[in-house]
Amino acid sequence: MVTNATIETLLNRRSIRKFKDEAIDADTVATLETVAQRAASSQFLNDWSAIRVSDPAVKAKLAEFGHQPYIATAPLLYVFVIDEHRNARIAESKGIDPAGDDFKLKTSYRFTQAQNDAVLALHAMETAAYSLGLGCVILGSILNDINGLIDLLNLPEYTYPVLGLAIGKPDQEPTLKPRMPRTMQFFENTYPADSENDLSEALPAFDAEVHQYYDLRQADRPVDAFSDQIATVSGQDVSGKTLLDKAAAQGFTLDK
Amino acid sequence: MVTNATIETLLNRRSIRKFKDEAIDADTVATLETVAQRAASSQFLNDWSAIRVSDPAVKAKLAEFGHQPYIATAPLLYVFVIDEHRNARIAESKGIDPAGDDFKLKTSYRFTQAQNDAVLALHAMETAAYSLGLGCVILGSILNDINGLIDLLNLPEYTYPVLGLAIGKPDQEPTLKPRMPRTMQFFENTYPADSENDLSEALPAFDAEVHQYYDLRQADRPVDAFSDQIATVSGQDVSGKTLLDKAAAQGFTLDK
Repeated sequence: MVTNATIETLLNRRSIRKFKDEAIDADTVATLETVAQRAASSQFLNDWSAIRVSDPAVKAKLAEFGHQPYIATAPLLYVFVIDEHRNARIAESKGIDPAGDDFKLKTSYRFTQAQNDAVLALHAMETAAYSLGLGCVILGSILNDINGLIDLLNLPEYTYPVLGLAIGKPDQEPTLKPRMPRTMQFFENTYPADSENDLSEALPAFDAEVHQYYDLRQADRPVDAFSDQIATVSGQDVSGKTLLDKAAAQGFTLDK
Repeated sequence: MVTNATIETLLNRRSIRKFKDEAIDADTVATLETVAQRAASSQFLNDWSAIRVSDPAVKAKLAEFGHQPYIATAPLLYVFVIDEHRNARIAESKGIDPAGDDFKLKTSYRFTQAQNDAVLALHAMETAAYSLGLGCVILGSILNDINGLIDLLNLPEYTYPVLGLAIGKPDQEPTLKPRMPRTMQFFENTYPADSENDLSEALPAFDAEVHQYYDLRQADRPVDAFSDQIATVSGQDVSGKTLLDKAAAQGFTLDK
């Protein structure tokens, strides 16, 4: 394998869920935010924003949404959002009515691309943080109560929450979590037909490897095999986290 | 600003759309793909895959979809996809019927989280590539013909295309593209009310800065001011790129 400091940082990434009670200095914060802004942006729309959450009451509320107490303890905490609100205001200043059909930034394509842009920015910030010896955890769990989250952060029309990111000095050392063999996830020129992609070749060894991994969240026993985890998660209720109805209330027309 | 090699790499990222006609060696490819796999994965679902496109005919087709001839010249080319197909097969082996209502990996929440995971992986690969002196461009344009793309790559049920990534040795040196002031994109504890977020303060200077930038794609003249670009793009037809109807044909139930 080819290597350098950046590749080492990326290869050694692991989620950190316990932080030292030490603030992150303003210079580091400025660096992380500037790095996030440098990520690619579809059509140069710059169509995301991030809410930096420093108010303990807001942090506590996010921890409540996510059912994860550690969220409230994160020294640095962000919620990244799709943001076509800023662009709608700009378009409006140019004589375009965002409520009308001619305003296309609220369509499904722009929504998904803005979501991608937000994730690119978040990952740039995450990578920079790890390179500085900080640790992070990406928070999908705050989406458990999307309406609550929208209310909490006063997210206006044409914005939508994407993910949270908690950052701090690590106060735990989790082991590196297994990944499936590369040939299970990378294919050449075509997605292989099931008949030519026999999972029973590589999956059992990966299942066994995962089953040997210890998660610090339940340190007394190895985690379930990958296949068992998939079976469990595939049945988990996510009905509180439907996307479309709530996106419509934020002004998006995802059927277009 | 705090700095190191990784942060320098992230701060100096610019899209590269012209590549030297030099292959990327297998060791580098292995490194880039392994790095991508190390990105975080929501609920450990590992619910993305990537198609490495080496066949010139497939490359040419992607270039045709994207209306971008340079796509066909990329030495290394990927299409990242949401992949719950692999997980559906695993769940099925555990007695769960993916076609039934108990299989929740096809819902809107899982779809969006899988999309996020694919973008995290893509950005990890992109960053590793830049750290090695390579250049990249992220390809949303290949989604111009989603059905064509699904057919071309034989994407099965419970998969969906997210973005492409073209990688190669840079054969151009674009200048760094402007970014808006950080205060326009990062907010504290709440999304600000419009009345407290006067765009007319910072926007004119940013408009002027963008208007001085030269894009190598149209090197004879400066690009439009940011506000003018927003006005133009907000009116661009994206009706060929609707998301929902095509996702349903791939088995996703995005209303759930």
